[in-house]
Amino acid sequence: MHKVGYIGLGLMGAPMARNLMKAGYQLVIHNRSRGIVDQLAAEGATPAFCPREVAEQVDVVFTNLPDSPDVERIALGPEGIIEGAHAGLIFVDNSTIKPETARHIARELARAGVPALDAPVSGGEIGAKAGTLTIMVGGPEEAFEAVMPLFQAMGKSVTRIGDSGAGQVAKCANQTIVAAQMAGMAEALVLAQKSGVDPRKVVQAISKGAAQCWALDTKPDRIFRRELTPGFKAYMQHKDLNIVLETGNIYGVPMPVTATIQQLYRAMLATGNENLDNSAIITVLEALAGVVVGGE
Amino acid sequence: MHKVGYIGLGLMGAPMARNLMKAGYQLVIHNRSRGIVDQLAAEGATPAFCPREVAEQVDVVFTNLPDSPDVERIALGPEGIIEGAHAGLIFVDNSTIKPETARHIARELARAGVPALDAPVSGGEIGAKAGTLTIMVGGPEEAFEAVMPLFQAMGKSVTRIGDSGAGQVAKCANQTIVAAQMAGMAEALVLAQKSGVDPRKVVQAISKGAAQCWALDTKPDRIFRRELTPGFKAYMQHKDLNIVLETGNIYGVPMPVTATIQQLYRAMLATGNENLDNSAIITVLEALAGVVVGGE
Repeated sequence: MHKVGYIGLGLMGAPMARNLMKAGYQLVIHNRSRGIVDQLAAEGATPAFCPREVAEQVDVVFTNLPDSPDVERIALGPEGIIEGAHAGLIFVDNSTIKPETARHIARELARAGVPALDAPVSGGEIGAKAGTLTIMVGGPEEAFEAVMPLFQAMGKSVTRIGDSGAGQVAKCANQTIVAAQMAGMAEALVLAQKSGVDPRKVVQAISKGAAQCWALDTKPDRIFRRELTPGFKAYMQHKDLNIVLETGNIYGVPMPVTATIQQLYRAMLATGNENLDNSAIITVLEALAGVVVGGE
Repeated sequence: MHKVGYIGLGLMGAPMARNLMKAGYQLVIHNRSRGIVDQLAAEGATPAFCPREVAEQVDVVFTNLPDSPDVERIALGPEGIIEGAHAGLIFVDNSTIKPETARHIARELARAGVPALDAPVSGGEIGAKAGTLTIMVGGPEEAFEAVMPLFQAMGKSVTRIGDSGAGQVAKCANQTIVAAQMAGMAEALVLAQKSGVDPRKVVQAISKGAAQCWALDTKPDRIFRRELTPGFKAYMQHKDLNIVLETGNIYGVPMPVTATIQQLYRAMLATGNENLDNSAIITVLEALAGVVVGGE
């Protein structure tokens, strides 16, 4: 398995595609905007005109796109991957999309003889560049094993969760917990600040106990310095929580805490802060309380 | 400083008092119910009839009581600590109570010449027994330094956060973040279960990435086995979130996420599950969704 396609060369897709090239795979690429295609072509990748053309030339075709409708169109639409279906082709989607959409795409591609894996990732741009992503996979075992060497070129923790859609459900769980950490930390720090207590001291005191979490380990220093650039953008966190809540709606799972947090991310979008880091949800709580954490 | 008083010998207070005795301090004790007093007396402690009598005999008097009114009564009420005030006495409260109450008690005791430290702890019964608690301290620097050797007999991480009440504010922050972890994890696991995905696999896949937190590290296996005994009781978590939200009310800090989580803990109390572990908040989400996590 030597020829690999990658469609969607954004902040995540481009470094993931580069890691496949570094691992020795011959890459065929496609992307809406041209700049990154030219860059990767200069590094040895072969551009293709449309997703169909990519699929026709490769053994495994990856997608990494913003949202559910994008993946559905690229996989199943006109000039899409399904039109380039051939014996031996495997489809892998690294996007974060609705589990239901992943299952629909997998069903349609299976009819065309193409096994599909949903394989969303966690770890951000840094993890994508370093090849240290967490990859959560749903889909047929056999396809998963065939693609494993490629996953290992992009991630350090690769888990098959279950059948089609299960990777996306795991990503939903991940994003639910990440959002809860960010919101809980934000409310805690704003409370400390406004009640006249140094939030730096609070973090120092509580960060090794039961409050310990990834958010508290990595974000407070940046918040105190007001370095709120991403990281992981708030509008992506908002989009991912949309997916979580829609999935909850489909399966009948009330999620009152996540729904509340989602409203706070919506406030970030409404006030033009959608491109800040997801930890910058604290700016919403600060605005509600009329205080800035880390100030005097 | 050799003679130490300890008032409130519950699940936390008794092992903390024992660790002071192990460190060589002579203990004077008082407790509402008699059984534990007799046990500790058999181990060498001296029982006293009332808080005043404890205070009169010691250099440092600790309290460890259920809620704010209890500490106020024991410290400032009739036959209370304030009536046993004498030169050199320091008051230390290990309870989790309202920062405002801690500040009020400190002001009143200061008038009687007694410096006061609020010193709530985190780490549970296990940490209390092992002497590995996190202790968050508010109050005068000099008193903090004088009591430090005693804190070190009970905890492994001891931080002075700031002036009176600051220890309780840090505990508020701690409980806010702990509750967010518990609720986020619960919603995530219920979503996985009800959408047909093995929550064990989900935890395995996400637990080392950005979702990593103390709750996810320690609780899922017990949830899957339905071992929901405490640990830290839900009614204590509910009580602590009451303190958090009342403190937010006093200082003007809207906390929509914590308020939502508090409602879920209230549901645990309403349905008779108040003595389960705080991670058993998942039972509320399970009831809402009509599913049991970890089942078939």
